[in-house]
Amino acid sequence: METPLNFELPEFLARANSQTVILPNAQDRMRFVLDLARENVAAGGGPFAAAVFEHDSGRLLAAGANRVVASGYSCAHAEVVALSLAQRRLGHYDLGQPDSPACELVSSAEPCLMCMGAVLWSGVRYLVCGARGEDVTAVGFDEGPKPQDWVGELRRRGIEVRSDVLRDQACELLRAYQAAGGPIYNASR
Amino acid sequence: METPLNFELPEFLARANSQTVILPNAQDRMRFVLDLARENVAAGGGPFAAAVFEHDSGRLLAAGANRVVASGYSCAHAEVVALSLAQRRLGHYDLGQPDSPACELVSSAEPCLMCMGAVLWSGVRYLVCGARGEDVTAVGFDEGPKPQDWVGELRRRGIEVRSDVLRDQACELLRAYQAAGGPIYNASR
Repeated sequence: METPLNFELPEFLARANSQTVILPNAQDRMRFVLDLARENVAAGGGPFAAAVFEHDSGRLLAAGANRVVASGYSCAHAEVVALSLAQRRLGHYDLGQPDSPACELVSSAEPCLMCMGAVLWSGVRYLVCGARGEDVTAVGFDEGPKPQDWVGELRRRGIEVRSDVLRDQACELLRAYQAAGGPIYNASR
Repeated sequence: METPLNFELPEFLARANSQTVILPNAQDRMRFVLDLARENVAAGGGPFAAAVFEHDSGRLLAAGANRVVASGYSCAHAEVVALSLAQRRLGHYDLGQPDSPACELVSSAEPCLMCMGAVLWSGVRYLVCGARGEDVTAVGFDEGPKPQDWVGELRRRGIEVRSDVLRDQACELLRAYQAAGGPIYNASR
């Protein structure tokens, strides 16, 4: 069978995606996501994770992490992985269908240009971020030429953004990755 | 096996990806891509296709098409599918490695915000586009808040952009899709 982006999830992610998890508040959801990011680094991945929750109930729909180096796909950012797994679970490309609960993407860091677009097309109504874009570029990753008012751009399109949730812990994770010499995998130029 | 974005390629795409194709010039490459887009619409997909070629030799590395509605993944834009298949074929997330031939993405239309980011992170050195962003939005699709000088942003990061290659034919395809009542699958808001 020919499939694009067909890589196996590491065990910790497969496990997270098969659990029942209900986390009523944003801090607990971010703590869950930062734990995933730490496990991902231990499993050969990048220092980024993301998860989709039902915004109101806090039920976990899908958990993802950055698997660029491990999978060999530059699109395998945490947000793309989490959104895609949530869409498979709900069986639709649009997580914002009128008859289904509003979805929230919780990400250990603000989205790069690609993931900002992925968020826009996914149908999520809420985005919760830990580290800022400037924290991500400070350790060497590239965020791309995002609009300066990217939060406003998302808001104007019906997506509420909440920033700086457990930012300190999210930054600590990025700095630990950098200090350990983790690969900074921007495309060569 | 847990995999994100695990959808089967339609037969015409699986076939295109198993052929040996060498097309020395941009017009012939675009014609090939526009044929893919037409076949994709006939196979229940969106009116967009893309392919990765070795820039100098014209050897086809991977062919993709928009499978959003058919696959249930909002990230399954033609560019993401083609870039991912090329990366799988070359076994690396970076198509711009110093020891490998420069890669070119040929797309039936200018990239949306997400795909602009995907192009940036992919390692391709050249991007060739058919229809313009304004042609795409004219039939109802959303391109997202791309930087106004998106071509310059890519150029500054080492990616040469060539626009308007067989633009008329690319636009005709978009209009035919719209006239036939093909689904315009933006996320609901």
